[in-house]
Amino acid sequence: MKIGIVMGSKSDYPVVEKAEEVLKDFGVAYESRVISAHRTPEAAAEFSKNAVDNGFEVIIAAAGKAAHLAGVLAASTPIPVIGIPMKTSDMGGMDSLLSTVQMPKGVPVATVAIGGAENAALLAIQILGTKYPELRQAIIDYKAKMQKDIEAADAETGNSFDPA
Amino acid sequence: MKIGIVMGSKSDYPVVEKAEEVLKDFGVAYESRVISAHRTPEAAAEFSKNAVDNGFEVIIAAAGKAAHLAGVLAASTPIPVIGIPMKTSDMGGMDSLLSTVQMPKGVPVATVAIGGAENAALLAIQILGTKYPELRQAIIDYKAKMQKDIEAADAETGNSFDPA
Amino acid sequence: MKIGIVMGSKSDYPVVEKAEEVLKDFGVAYESRVISAHRTPEAAAEFSKNAVDNGFEVIIAAAGKAAHLAGVLAASTPIPVIGIPMKTSDMGGMDSLLSTVQMPKGVPVATVAIGGAENAALLAIQILGTKYPELRQAIIDYKAKMQKDIEAADAETGNSFDPA
Amino acid sequence: MKIGIVMGSKSDYPVVEKAEEVLKDFGVAYESRVISAHRTPEAAAEFSKNAVDNGFEVIIAAAGKAAHLAGVLAASTPIPVIGIPMKTSDMGGMDSLLSTVQMPKGVPVATVAIGGAENAALLAIQILGTKYPELRQAIIDYKAKMQKDIEAADAETGNSFDPA
Amino acid sequence: MKIGIVMGSKSDYPVVEKAEEVLKDFGVAYESRVISAHRTPEAAAEFSKNAVDNGFEVIIAAAGKAAHLAGVLAASTPIPVIGIPMKTSDMGGMDSLLSTVQMPKGVPVATVAIGGAENAALLAIQILGTKYPELRQAIIDYKAKMQKDIEAADAETGNSFDPA
Amino acid sequence: MKIGIVMGSKSDYPVVEKAEEVLKDFGVAYESRVISAHRTPEAAAEFSKNAVDNGFEVIIAAAGKAAHLAGVLAASTPIPVIGIPMKTSDMGGMDSLLSTVQMPKGVPVATVAIGGAENAALLAIQILGTKYPELRQAIIDYKAKMQKDIEAADAETGNSFDPA
Amino acid sequence: MKIGIVMGSKSDYPVVEKAEEVLKDFGVAYESRVISAHRTPEAAAEFSKNAVDNGFEVIIAAAGKAAHLAGVLAASTPIPVIGIPMKTSDMGGMDSLLSTVQMPKGVPVATVAIGGAENAALLAIQILGTKYPELRQAIIDYKAKMQKDIEAADAETGNSFDPA
Amino acid sequence: MKIGIVMGSKSDYPVVEKAEEVLKDFGVAYESRVISAHRTPEAAAEFSKNAVDNGFEVIIAAAGKAAHLAGVLAASTPIPVIGIPMKTSDMGGMDSLLSTVQMPKGVPVATVAIGGAENAALLAIQILGTKYPELRQAIIDYKAKMQKDIEAADAETGNSFDPA
Repeated sequence: MKIGIVMGSKSDYPVVEKAEEVLKDFGVAYESRVISAHRTPEAAAEFSKNAVDNGFEVIIAAAGKAAHLAGVLAASTPIPVIGIPMKTSDMGGMDSLLSTVQMPKGVPVATVAIGGAENAALLAIQILGTKYPELRQAIIDYKAKMQKDIEAADAETGNSFDPA
Repeated sequence: MKIGIVMGSKSDYPVVEKAEEVLKDFGVAYESRVISAHRTPEAAAEFSKNAVDNGFEVIIAAAGKAAHLAGVLAASTPIPVIGIPMKTSDMGGMDSLLSTVQMPKGVPVATVAIGGAENAALLAIQILGTKYPELRQAIIDYKAKMQKDIEAADAETGNSFDPA
Repeated sequence: MKIGIVMGSKSDYPVVEKAEEVLKDFGVAYESRVISAHRTPEAAAEFSKNAVDNGFEVIIAAAGKAAHLAGVLAASTPIPVIGIPMKTSDMGGMDSLLSTVQMPKGVPVATVAIGGAENAALLAIQILGTKYPELRQAIIDYKAKMQKDIEAADAETGNSFDPA
Repeated sequence: MKIGIVMGSKSDYPVVEKAEEVLKDFGVAYESRVISAHRTPEAAAEFSKNAVDNGFEVIIAAAGKAAHLAGVLAASTPIPVIGIPMKTSDMGGMDSLLSTVQMPKGVPVATVAIGGAENAALLAIQILGTKYPELRQAIIDYKAKMQKDIEAADAETGNSFDPA
Repeated sequence: MKIGIVMGSKSDYPVVEKAEEVLKDFGVAYESRVISAHRTPEAAAEFSKNAVDNGFEVIIAAAGKAAHLAGVLAASTPIPVIGIPMKTSDMGGMDSLLSTVQMPKGVPVATVAIGGAENAALLAIQILGTKYPELRQAIIDYKAKMQKDIEAADAETGNSFDPA
Repeated sequence: MKIGIVMGSKSDYPVVEKAEEVLKDFGVAYESRVISAHRTPEAAAEFSKNAVDNGFEVIIAAAGKAAHLAGVLAASTPIPVIGIPMKTSDMGGMDSLLSTVQMPKGVPVATVAIGGAENAALLAIQILGTKYPELRQAIIDYKAKMQKDIEAADAETGNSFDPA
Repeated sequence: MKIGIVMGSKSDYPVVEKAEEVLKDFGVAYESRVISAHRTPEAAAEFSKNAVDNGFEVIIAAAGKAAHLAGVLAASTPIPVIGIPMKTSDMGGMDSLLSTVQMPKGVPVATVAIGGAENAALLAIQILGTKYPELRQAIIDYKAKMQKDIEAADAETGNSFDPA
Repeated sequence: MKIGIVMGSKSDYPVVEKAEEVLKDFGVAYESRVISAHRTPEAAAEFSKNAVDNGFEVIIAAAGKAAHLAGVLAASTPIPVIGIPMKTSDMGGMDSLLSTVQMPKGVPVATVAIGGAENAALLAIQILGTKYPELRQAIIDYKAKMQKDIEAADAETGNSFDPA
């Protein structure tokens, strides 16, 4: 069980790192790579074509602007590819989002929110959870923990006012 | 192996039907339901909470406008939820897309293109393919067929002109 | 007479607090809660289903990104739900706005401006003013005060220039 | 108990009519007017200033493009004003939506979806329901009926496929 | 010859001030006022209805968000109204722009760029230049000066490189 | 007293014609030209530079897509230039609007709504009204007529319902 | 001298054909292909890597939605790649435009307007015109012809009105 | 071999400078100018009309907001014009982008990403590379270097985690 993480540029790492942290917390192996659809197209194709043979079961791809990385990887592998559209300084990430999600018929990219690295990792784990029962259980536990966190926030932040 | 398909309104069926056709072509069982996050919230919660027990491994949810359906289903199940943002007559589907993809941390929705019902089905199959080798193979075969189709289109439509 | 305020995340509190301040100024009781449509869906459903029995007459819901909270609460209560779309760092709040306002037929959310917490509180008071004459009068007084404030700003900031 | 409906142009009537139909179904009295914030500004001010004296408890305003009508009416009355942003041929209604919802602090407009005339009427009824218990009950009944309609659609449209 | 400047809020003054400076530079009299279409609707109507009698020949109106001010003033005066859409923190001013420029048939607002206070003043002077020849000449001189400034910037910033 | 109308393409004429009709109704002379900022740049510069000498007091320019026409004309004349952003089939006219209204400091274009040809003509007349009292009066009369039209629409379309 | 034209789908041909017609008019050789960045990624890489050896001097790529084709081709060839963003039914082509133009540093795509097939061909000819003087002359002639066409439209459509 | 760089304002220089740096690195001669389509329209026309005679083979034009510069230059020269849409503080550069890229039929502008100065220079070099083999080779070398840089980033930033 191993997840491939690909970022289009070294500068994406601070966001991608949050996906890595989630995977570590869940004890899921990953390999992170810097591969660019445009600057190292052959490496991208190689990574994708060999993903199955190299033991990857899901790929997470983070890229910004005209974000072709997730789509390019999805083109050459049968495993699910999750796209993280990176926030951009001029368009807020709308360019990354549309470049990632609006894939034509035949080659889907499972797109999460702009900058949604944690959710990309969680989605990858949910996908693996269809195969590995312990991961499905881990997601159930994670949801229970989130619920507790919100309940704690409610206890802490919630308040009331009554003029009577 | 079974996929749950949920649409927020009967009027979404002509689009959802395309996902059903893909699943039929791949021989993957599904159940399609009309459940609204806003008009039948309890049915939505029930469907989601019981999805695992009812044998669903992936959920596909199609909804438009303030499209909460996929997110609401994702809230209560550990299995992956794929969102199809429906095209809308006034906003072109931008409202559906943002309502589906911009999920907050903790609860991802695997979003495909606006109206991308076929891709939702293909993504579901790719997800199941992590567990069921025959589905991974079927995706590989599907990709080979797509390639042939494009090559045929190239043979048919491609042309050249040389004034020399 | 009591208003329910629900925020999707503790981080929404600095904005929500402005609604609380308006309600305090008008002497209107409220209860503020942190409840997430996605992370505590059952709490959200409970809150909404019991809102009438718990004495709430209007609900204000603040949420950002794929902001489902207001719509989810509106699904399960007959009382008016006011939505505050939270500003978001990447989309400026356009995602929150469309997710809140574009509700399908049958389940309206009374949407105010992005980050418009004060207006949400004022709208809640206007709604209660249909029942409680003292609140309608308080709104009339508030409008008179706003007018005075603008007149004071006019006196202070307005100026003129005449080269003659 | 009476609702004022104001449309900025006669051409808005086919949409506004859907609000009227909902109000008729609920047995709620209304008066519909064609008043333009820009072409009959005095009539707009008069309508708004006299709304309380004329027995109106809620105002619904429908306008398109630079849709100032709801805001202008809200400026001069303490009762809640609901805005329906009309769909526009060039911008899809984004201009109407932003002109209606983005009201500055102090003067809220309860905005519903683009073209959401039914929801405007339902919201008006929900607002009156805070005062008139029979209307709150009617909303509860309406929600029950919606649920039945979706359940019927589910029974009719839902289907399943199992290759096994 | 006198121009009326109206801003919807005291906080608009730092932008509006740039229009005042241009008018001072051209020796054109103005009166600046803080009047809100929503918080002092009667003052807005009075200002507009009396604009001609008070000697105003052009009105400049600056407002943000659901920016109704320019349109509301234009409704009640036959003189040209120039709208400055104010930049907004969440939408960048797109809300202000659409609320100002998309006026329905019959009541135009001469809209300049978001935050374009200098251009509003220049446009007002160009309009007055149709009547006052000295202002038309002043615009010609201003254009000559702008040309010189750009030429100076060209002399200063322009550069060349030749590897030969 | 004469207005210059310039359209960037013959295909803009059905919209431009509405401006001509308004001008005819008001008895204001105009000359309409097809001149392209990109295909006949010298003609555009000539028209603009000679506009004053040729007796034009206001220019109306209609163009779509990357709509440079109004700005290019405004660059070379001291008289006011009114821009009509044309609706476009792919962007709805957002491209034309931003290309027309977002003029840099120094060269304003008085922009009206997308496709707002009538308003462009009315604005031109209002501008001339600062000089020609009969045109100011004509605008006052036009506003009175608009008011009557809305009142007639109100009489015709307005209606009421009372279940009592 | 030969131009490569690549379209992502057979359905793009009606638009691409307009580029072919321009090239034929200018007597410039081309080869048109249907190659998909996502469905035939290897063919795309092959086409691009061999473009120089196969005698191509410029590539025109037309694709829609998450339009990766132009960028993917540009990744593997040193010759200029011109991108035509295709209009899309839901987003008007904004998705195609941003996916094509917002290329990261290092790999430009020369992007033309949405659906701008003629301009893509003209740009290709202008590029070749830096090398082939007869093509530069042909562009000069083309511009002269455009000017004549606009002048003819001006003669035909232009008109004037003078009430005097 | 010489490239003309034109910026609409001195304030564009920090971005334009990055294009200059790329050209210097490639040893390509350039002349940089500050010329405004709106403030020095005659200089713009002169520059463009004389570009060929002055030895320019490609023009790069950088401008923001209603960015007409690239289009205006393209109107009067047969050589390729590359447009850099400048980022803007209110619209993020969407105004500049649409004003630059959406050129009407007949006059293309080769548009690069918002703020994409390096890419503009690279595209200019690729265009010249059709004529000057040493520049084509230099682009091939540049691509090889980019690949090395990404590989180095991959070696440096890439990492893996395996809980086993």
